[in-house]
Amino acid sequence: MEPVDTLVCARWVLPVEPDGTVLADHAVAMRDGRIVAVLPTAAALASYTPAELVERPHHAILPGLVNAHTHAAMTLLRGRAENLALAPWLQDAIAPIERRWVDPEYVRDGTELAIAEMQRGGVTCFADMQLWPEVVARAAADAHMRVSVGLVVEQAASRWAADPNEYIEKGMALRDDYRGDALVATHFALEPSHALDDPTLARVRRLADELEIPVALPVHESAWEVAESLARHGARPLDRLVRLGFASPLLVAVHGTCLSPADIDALAACGAAVVHCPESNLKLGSGVCPAADLLSRGVRVALGTDGAASNNDLDVLSEMRTAGLLAAGVSARPGALVARDLLRMATLEGARVLGLGDSTGSLVPGKWADLCCINLRTAGSWPVHDVEAALVYACSSRQVTDTWVAGRRVFAAGSLRYIDEESVLERAEAWRARIDAAHGGSQD
Amino acid sequence: MEPVDTLVCARWVLPVEPDGTVLADHAVAMRDGRIVAVLPTAAALASYTPAELVERPHHAILPGLVNAHTHAAMTLLRGRAENLALAPWLQDAIAPIERRWVDPEYVRDGTELAIAEMQRGGVTCFADMQLWPEVVARAAADAHMRVSVGLVVEQAASRWAADPNEYIEKGMALRDDYRGDALVATHFALEPSHALDDPTLARVRRLADELEIPVALPVHESAWEVAESLARHGARPLDRLVRLGFASPLLVAVHGTCLSPADIDALAACGAAVVHCPESNLKLGSGVCPAADLLSRGVRVALGTDGAASNNDLDVLSEMRTAGLLAAGVSARPGALVARDLLRMATLEGARVLGLGDSTGSLVPGKWADLCCINLRTAGSWPVHDVEAALVYACSSRQVTDTWVAGRRVFAAGSLRYIDEESVLERAEAWRARIDAAHGGSQD
Repeated sequence: MEPVDTLVCARWVLPVEPDGTVLADHAVAMRDGRIVAVLPTAAALASYTPAELVERPHHAILPGLVNAHTHAAMTLLRGRAENLALAPWLQDAIAPIERRWVDPEYVRDGTELAIAEMQRGGVTCFADMQLWPEVVARAAADAHMRVSVGLVVEQAASRWAADPNEYIEKGMALRDDYRGDALVATHFALEPSHALDDPTLARVRRLADELEIPVALPVHESAWEVAESLARHGARPLDRLVRLGFASPLLVAVHGTCLSPADIDALAACGAAVVHCPESNLKLGSGVCPAADLLSRGVRVALGTDGAASNNDLDVLSEMRTAGLLAAGVSARPGALVARDLLRMATLEGARVLGLGDSTGSLVPGKWADLCCINLRTAGSWPVHDVEAALVYACSSRQVTDTWVAGRRVFAAGSLRYIDEESVLERAEAWRARIDAAHGGSQD
Repeated sequence: MEPVDTLVCARWVLPVEPDGTVLADHAVAMRDGRIVAVLPTAAALASYTPAELVERPHHAILPGLVNAHTHAAMTLLRGRAENLALAPWLQDAIAPIERRWVDPEYVRDGTELAIAEMQRGGVTCFADMQLWPEVVARAAADAHMRVSVGLVVEQAASRWAADPNEYIEKGMALRDDYRGDALVATHFALEPSHALDDPTLARVRRLADELEIPVALPVHESAWEVAESLARHGARPLDRLVRLGFASPLLVAVHGTCLSPADIDALAACGAAVVHCPESNLKLGSGVCPAADLLSRGVRVALGTDGAASNNDLDVLSEMRTAGLLAAGVSARPGALVARDLLRMATLEGARVLGLGDSTGSLVPGKWADLCCINLRTAGSWPVHDVEAALVYACSSRQVTDTWVAGRRVFAAGSLRYIDEESVLERAEAWRARIDAAHGGSQD
């Protein structure tokens, strides 16, 4: 009998690797933050003496969900700018508020709220883009949350950095601070390329290649972005990025709603990845990422929620459902993305896109024990003829019962372990009151 | 001080009538199953002595949601037939199972499961289409659920009725049994018109006009339905229905994914209603109902989930979100349907479509006290800059805390009052095991 820290036994285990595996009456053993084994429950009970035994007889265990693109602190602006297209949403509604209010305290509070929502919803890792990324990193580390913090690069001055060089320097310093950290990874997170000049893009590209870190940025998020790039640089964004040397597996093209067949060819040829954010794209009327076509061309596709100011939540389970419905409905091809594809996109593909595919994203011995457990025995998701379909099309993120990050149970029995949720909700309400008072439009 | 049965006080009350009203710190008083008043909490506490006082300080009260089209008993087939288009889904996957298994016991168990899910999700009324509608009526009455039971008319014999005359006779008998019932209403529920001959349609039309009851049927659910009607009757379904005299406010055109401008004109001209079932339509790849266009032409539009075998849940809150995202995304018009429209479609418009608009669907004194209460103070829906947007885009149906039907609290504190949920879930699992064993494809 071998001691382990935790043994969690469930009706179903979906390890995601090998693809599409559904294991009945299996267990996951964890020790020192890592997965030790995935095996039949009977064998597990005969092999391991767990410090903690968790029995989940009507539940599915799956890898923790990966939110491959968000702006966590935007939770504080949830519902603040409704019914607008991307350009007016950003320029007229969001930017003025962010310029006035975003500071380390704001980022801390908004990010904590986001992590609370995500840990409750089975998300164990998120990729973030936000000024003051060092605050995001600290908030995640304190909440025992896995994050890939975006090293933000923008052209214009902000309260965080004066020019592209300072953005990059601060990003590099942050990367150094967390080198080797168990929870905090980094990637470059650029504003849309039309706003960035060639030298800045070239410098980011050189650094990314040297350091081998992903470069995420909006790519063809909307027709507006494409038009801006054509007007300013005489080239569509992806063409320009290719010309500047970004055509590599490190490129993470976020959104991708306006992709021509040639664009898809280009993404496929260089091994780039796409992050599909269906709910935000739909809500802003930006268009629909051709996720099924990309997948069929071998392009890696992960899922993101984008920020809560355009979504309006950070619910990756719901994002899977929307992506599946959209792929079937828009192409009139039911099963264009099957539930299995969606589960892989929301877990392993997300991890891979962020460069974390070797250490998380699937339930494989040796990987970090990042997983969640979902109760399927509810009136809205029972009976279970097909567990993958149940998870994608009939479950709510509110059916997540337990979330583990690196072997620690961050959410269980309805409570978060590392976040004082009452305090976070109070601080969020204080921000809302302050912002609505200053900018009008309060509910009061 | 006036005695009332229940006074529920909340942070926000959205009565839906007048349209778009958001009342802060208001209360709803109920007596004898009816709404007595909607007024500021302070005034309510000074005016009424409630037998039961319910305080919901971070919650929104809204009219109970109306699921304007479902097949409740299909919950037993949730996830049983994935990734198929409408015709093969129905003909090859669902029909063989239903022909073998559907009987009064099946309908009872499946309907109870559906009502459990709906009452938990704030739904207080549903329109159903299912053989053995008398079993549906009984299940709803027993669960203290409002229903408009579909008086099913099909051309072919089934285990329930031998020919159209028997369908109609049994339907009329059922209608008589529940005449004047506080909870059970009826409407005609026809199979797609291409399957029905002219005399049957003519007879239904005469009866519906005489009795003034709505006639619901799929209308242009998919290109397949349109093609079938053209092949069999030489006319598109809506054209044929118009020719046969169905062009009236009693017509409830369900689905409506393939509507030409002329079809929309025809629906608008006669005052017909449309039930938009976005998730089921998307999942089956049937197309997208032009809900925003219909609304702008003055056509009444309600929301339905369709059955759980094609959705895969009966979550009207989620259906609102999908309808909103879809309207914005597909037309590239953010706000094509605003949250206020969606809330009205999911409540008052649903009631009106079913002929129940005078007695339910909004929080107006004298109407039945059909309402639900939703907790907005959760990490995923807080802070609330815009309560309508929060309800549609950031809330889960699992945030419903209380549901009242005709003044009785059918769901509270996580439990259903009139349904033995444990027993329902067990019976559902027994059906699943039986069906999967007979037809293959079990999870075991």
